[in-house]
Amino acid sequence: MSACPFCQIAAGEIPAAVVFAQPSCLAFLDHRPLFPGHCLLIPRSHYETLAELPPPVAAELFSAAHRLSAVIEEALGADGSFVALNNRVSQSVPHVHIHVVPRRKGDGLKGFFWPRRKYRDAAEMEQVHSSLVRAWERATSQS
Amino acid sequence: MSACPFCQIAAGEIPAAVVFAQPSCLAFLDHRPLFPGHCLLIPRSHYETLAELPPPVAAELFSAAHRLSAVIEEALGADGSFVALNNRVSQSVPHVHIHVVPRRKGDGLKGFFWPRRKYRDAAEMEQVHSSLVRAWERATSQS
Repeated sequence: MSACPFCQIAAGEIPAAVVFAQPSCLAFLDHRPLFPGHCLLIPRSHYETLAELPPPVAAELFSAAHRLSAVIEEALGADGSFVALNNRVSQSVPHVHIHVVPRRKGDGLKGFFWPRRKYRDAAEMEQVHSSLVRAWERATSQS
Repeated sequence: MSACPFCQIAAGEIPAAVVFAQPSCLAFLDHRPLFPGHCLLIPRSHYETLAELPPPVAAELFSAAHRLSAVIEEALGADGSFVALNNRVSQSVPHVHIHVVPRRKGDGLKGFFWPRRKYRDAAEMEQVHSSLVRAWERATSQS
């Protein structure tokens, strides 16, 4: 038996309120939700972070997230939704999981996009920008 | 000229620090980042929320998010990353945008997954679960 709780859920070894199961992914209710209906969407296979997911697995996972966010909004009469994924930092279980959460106006969820700050100056922004552009070019030239 | 600032960025009508541009999507630095390197990834065409995105556009957008999160981590030597999308609630610009944010241990970003609560009781959880399962089945039986 795997030591990973999400692998155990995927294998049916521990119970979960599964919303749907597909060949390579499944979604279930988080047992300590931000709001009722908060789902966790995971690949069946164990990958720790998004970066490690093979592109076809990521594609199926995100396609399911796309549909699940609409399903959650409709099923629960929500005003909106929140789709989020933490890689390593703030990631409580080291098995990739996408949070899909129903949102309502005035639901009290805040602070997550705070504090925002401006770049110190144009030079700092330009340095960060150049690093990212170069890294993107390296990544895409290899594929 | 569109009234939507992200359409204006996509059209090159207002400046932005563009990290990459693809046929159907592009990413640029948020000018008020959570942390330096915080990018916004958008479809070129105007769609307000994820639910409205045609599947092929969503697929290209999420594929780019997959790669961009790895690129940001590598380029900036980050410990991890945060990928998030707000639909309607907490969505400041009504043009779909995925936040891709570098994270570091102890970076002070917290509170976003707070407060968590348990379901009131098993009945509440089961009611929510059934609603979602039925809505998922309706959605997938139509396609």
